[in-house]
Amino acid sequence: MARLDPKDGYAVLINTFYVAPERAGELMTLLERATQETMRFQPGYVSANLHLSSDKTRIVNYAQWRSRADFEAMLRDPIARAHIAEVGKVATSFDPVIFELRCSDPAEIS
Amino acid sequence: MARLDPKDGYAVLINTFYVAPERAGELMTLLERATQETMRFQPGYVSANLHLSSDKTRIVNYAQWRSRADFEAMLRDPIARAHIAEVGKVATSFDPVIFELRCSDPAEIS
Repeated sequence: MARLDPKDGYAVLINTFYVAPERAGELMTLLERATQETMRFQPGYVSANLHLSSDKTRIVNYAQWRSRADFEAMLRDPIARAHIAEVGKVATSFDPVIFELRCSDPAEIS
Repeated sequence: MARLDPKDGYAVLINTFYVAPERAGELMTLLERATQETMRFQPGYVSANLHLSSDKTRIVNYAQWRSRADFEAMLRDPIARAHIAEVGKVATSFDPVIFELRCSDPAEIS
């Protein structure tokens, strides 16, 4: 579970993975495992949230990090890199982009 | 503020707007206004969360709807359509995709 609040000031990684629909389940399992075994133990990790598109051609990880520096440090970690390489064999491509949450409506959790 | 919890079962719209960096501020203002004036009053609206990429070439709206049918009904609303047309004049393109949140880590809000 994650809370989206601009006041938290997190670096938000929105990573879109493109995948053949018949391999979407396999990719989802890999990403869940990477989260549980590796990512959640990285310094500055806040949350990971895995989404499957209706047509099963995309998985989006909406991930919160304390800062961009923490996210970049994770990218240099050998175990995290091994997970990313494994994911790259199942996804056809992926597009990680760092965002800042600017505004959220409603202001309180409904 | 929004809460991401697979148990809520929302339809998640992740809409990526591509924009010239010098027009990103203008687009953000338009999207905030569309949210406050129109979208939040549509049946089934849950939340909208506007994110700006570090390089200012993308804005992502992470929006929660009670169901896909509610989201599609909004697309037929004339006032919502007018807002979308206005946004289309400032963004160079946009890519709305419907997802289902499959898993969220940690299980509780940290």
